[in-house]
Amino acid sequence: MWRYIRCLPERGRIGIFNRSYYEEVLVVRVHPELLERQKLPPPLVSKRIWDERLADIAHFEDYVARQGTKIPKFFLHVSRNEQKKRFMDRLDGPEKNWKFSASDVQERKFWSEYMYAFEEAIRTTASKHAPWFVVPADNKWFSRLLVAAAIVEPMASLDLAYPKLDAVKKKELAAARVALSRER
Amino acid sequence: MWRYIRCLPERGRIGIFNRSYYEEVLVVRVHPELLERQKLPPPLVSKRIWDERLADIAHFEDYVARQGTKIPKFFLHVSRNEQKKRFMDRLDGPEKNWKFSASDVQERKFWSEYMYAFEEAIRTTASKHAPWFVVPADNKWFSRLLVAAAIVEPMASLDLAYPKLDAVKKKELAAARVALSRER
Repeated sequence: MWRYIRCLPERGRIGIFNRSYYEEVLVVRVHPELLERQKLPPPLVSKRIWDERLADIAHFEDYVARQGTKIPKFFLHVSRNEQKKRFMDRLDGPEKNWKFSASDVQERKFWSEYMYAFEEAIRTTASKHAPWFVVPADNKWFSRLLVAAAIVEPMASLDLAYPKLDAVKKKELAAARVALSRER
Repeated sequence: MWRYIRCLPERGRIGIFNRSYYEEVLVVRVHPELLERQKLPPPLVSKRIWDERLADIAHFEDYVARQGTKIPKFFLHVSRNEQKKRFMDRLDGPEKNWKFSASDVQERKFWSEYMYAFEEAIRTTASKHAPWFVVPADNKWFSRLLVAAAIVEPMASLDLAYPKLDAVKKKELAAARVALSRER
């Protein structure tokens, strides 16, 4: 979590986290050998570790929400068939070859393990202040529309406005207008 | 919390936090005008804010403990009489004058408010993995002895050992011993 907390956007800014700390309960859960490499003290690693990590994530998002941050979370759900089609396109289209990664095809074998990890993560960390949006993503324009709509709502709730100018600043603007209009 | 999380000691290191994030539920609780300056979105500031902050602190310490960090916490309790005596010493001894701060005497007026804030903080954030040690601190050598004793125990539980040398490294040492002993 520490690495991500360091990169949180300050108040007044927007941050976009791609994958993020959820990797710790997704790919690491599917491949426990990644967990071994984290060199955690062995007494702290039990069967409960995934529930503990999910609780830590939910608590962290509680805290961030209490600082005034909106936390919409998106799961772009690509179907198994669509994934196959996209991999095939990368193999068949020379201009898409660069996108192809053999390890992506390897990971596909763990489809049901990933689905289980996704479900657990979404179920235990969805909350009013940090909702999950599960977006059907086989169709790109449609998934983008859904994501945009889901972002508009929390943005609108922030009741944002442009900064108001004080009298001094307004005078400055008036003076600048005069100076500019006198220019040839 | 963010400021403190950035400064957490990495695994294998010891960090000492003086005052720390507990200030957010102590001095800020006693002086709510400090809270106003934090520019939190008003809907997020309710009577529940202190309980929420204390929950965030407890959850944060859960998370840190799960990474293998021991978190002993110390409250050095100086009595009201002893505090008066120490302030008087600072006023009377020219070599201690520099330590005197008028605002310390000012804060003394909020004694019972501070005691309430201390009690709430200790009560709600004491846990097995992040215990509070309330140390009588009128007598300095005694309070230091207690703190040292309370630090020894979690240190011992870490089962630390010096790094072991492999055969290559041992050969290096033997060669260095020969070289050194040949020196005049």
